[in-house]
Amino acid sequence: MEINRENISAWLKQLQDSICSALEQADGKSKFEEDNWMREEGGGGRTRIIRNGNVIEKGGVLFSAVHGDAPPFLFKEQQHSTAQVIESKETPQFFATGISIVIHPVNPMVPIIHMNIRYFEMTGGIRWFGGGIDLTPHYINENDAKFFHTQLKNVCDKHNVSYYNKFKEWADDYFYITHRKETRGIGGIFFDRLNESTDMSFEKNFKFWQGVGETFAPTYVELINRNKNKTFTEKNKDWQLLRRGRYVEFNLVYDKGTKFGLETNGRVESILMSLPRYAGWEYNFVPEKNSEEEKTLSLLKKGITWA
Amino acid sequence: MEINRENISAWLKQLQDSICSALEQADGKSKFEEDNWMREEGGGGRTRIIRNGNVIEKGGVLFSAVHGDAPPFLFKEQQHSTAQVIESKETPQFFATGISIVIHPVNPMVPIIHMNIRYFEMTGGIRWFGGGIDLTPHYINENDAKFFHTQLKNVCDKHNVSYYNKFKEWADDYFYITHRKETRGIGGIFFDRLNESTDMSFEKNFKFWQGVGETFAPTYVELINRNKNKTFTEKNKDWQLLRRGRYVEFNLVYDKGTKFGLETNGRVESILMSLPRYAGWEYNFVPEKNSEEEKTLSLLKKGITWA
Repeated sequence: MEINRENISAWLKQLQDSICSALEQADGKSKFEEDNWMREEGGGGRTRIIRNGNVIEKGGVLFSAVHGDAPPFLFKEQQHSTAQVIESKETPQFFATGISIVIHPVNPMVPIIHMNIRYFEMTGGIRWFGGGIDLTPHYINENDAKFFHTQLKNVCDKHNVSYYNKFKEWADDYFYITHRKETRGIGGIFFDRLNESTDMSFEKNFKFWQGVGETFAPTYVELINRNKNKTFTEKNKDWQLLRRGRYVEFNLVYDKGTKFGLETNGRVESILMSLPRYAGWEYNFVPEKNSEEEKTLSLLKKGITWA
Repeated sequence: MEINRENISAWLKQLQDSICSALEQADGKSKFEEDNWMREEGGGGRTRIIRNGNVIEKGGVLFSAVHGDAPPFLFKEQQHSTAQVIESKETPQFFATGISIVIHPVNPMVPIIHMNIRYFEMTGGIRWFGGGIDLTPHYINENDAKFFHTQLKNVCDKHNVSYYNKFKEWADDYFYITHRKETRGIGGIFFDRLNESTDMSFEKNFKFWQGVGETFAPTYVELINRNKNKTFTEKNKDWQLLRRGRYVEFNLVYDKGTKFGLETNGRVESILMSLPRYAGWEYNFVPEKNSEEEKTLSLLKKGITWA
């Protein structure tokens, strides 16, 4: 198969289908609702939302493929990052397609998960893959953290043995709440602008990128099944709300996808599907000594080796 | 009395005291807790938080007075806005003092309120007053909205008859959630950089600014007393959570004070006291036809004449 925007989009839609099926099955109650939307300037998306489930309180699995005139800031940024001078008498055109997922579970013992994989093209022969998966447990369970990172390491190693360490470090830096001096969760992998000039061929990077997308469902379903029946208290629920508050802080203050979407007049309800149904903030909350909450906070830092 | 930074700070602390007393009395149950903090680079603050009250679920009345080397971006911005070229062999110094208030009530029929008044000085003879008050009702009550704006108009008119219209419009523009295409609430007044060159003398602007600060307590206490005993349903509470979600979006995405604080390594717990104890997000929420929620949404726009 030739790797072109049509084939990539088609593959992403099929991946969206299979992830939604896997999540519905794991949830056992709720089904995804679908909203198809069009972008005035070109393209559109297929937003799927699941809510009030047995396992999932609120979550989204979103596909989009948009194109049109490249906004000036995007054009500049891409030229800058590729050190290319693009000569064109026409307005430069861009194309971007991807899947974004955020799942907020009911049970505080089940972690929040996020994945984004994206493909980008622009006038001047620019094309690249980007993406990331990261896990945000309300309570960090070391075995689950090891499992999660091992899954990511396995998919990386299969394609390029240098990728896991590099992309794990990138995730530590990216999913960081600077003002709190804490990571959002236990990280994962993050990568951007993978193309022919990055370590290996465009075709091989495409295969790696597909591998990341396919790792999502089996990994998260396993984490759901391990934890969904664990009991929890009101105190656990309240801690979950505070951790979700931090998630909101990250997404609204730092997340580049969110900022980009809001600044370019994207579909707000799709962009902000990442926010939880309920969240909370408490002034100057300090967890009890030797509590599970304190342990979790102590592990929200960069550079921990999980796999 | 000479108008200098010491006198201004002292006046603000006394205003903080009187506002806290008035709010404690209106609440009838909870008392403010106080945290005094120091800023490593110079100055500090007196953070007062009230929670779990009869009327107030979570709120803060914060005083601070900080000084030190002006961060380069601040220096540039001030020079630019005053069109002054500051020549100095030493690092330019700044001084900033102010009060910030946000109150999130328990009862959804009581509005959220915010006030900030600030005084700023910098090397080169730069000095100005800024501030604003705005009201965010979960349910807009026209009588209350008129009362609130009339209070603000009265204090403006007493000092300068051109101020209310100008500062009301400024508030409409400032307290605007661009990506939602809605105002945060019913607005109020917002003003910045009032100094000798702004309409009237520095001394007169100081008096106006004091007037704004003194208007806060009687205005909000009246709104509390009008609404605190109104009954409400679970549906009203859930709508309150959604409106608080919008409040969080405004503060984390747009509010300049919050951004400035987070970017300059300010005291996070003080900066983010503005966030509610609980908030919520629902995908694509659409209020029922002819409901109170729909009416409120229809009034969240710029340019409504309330006084």
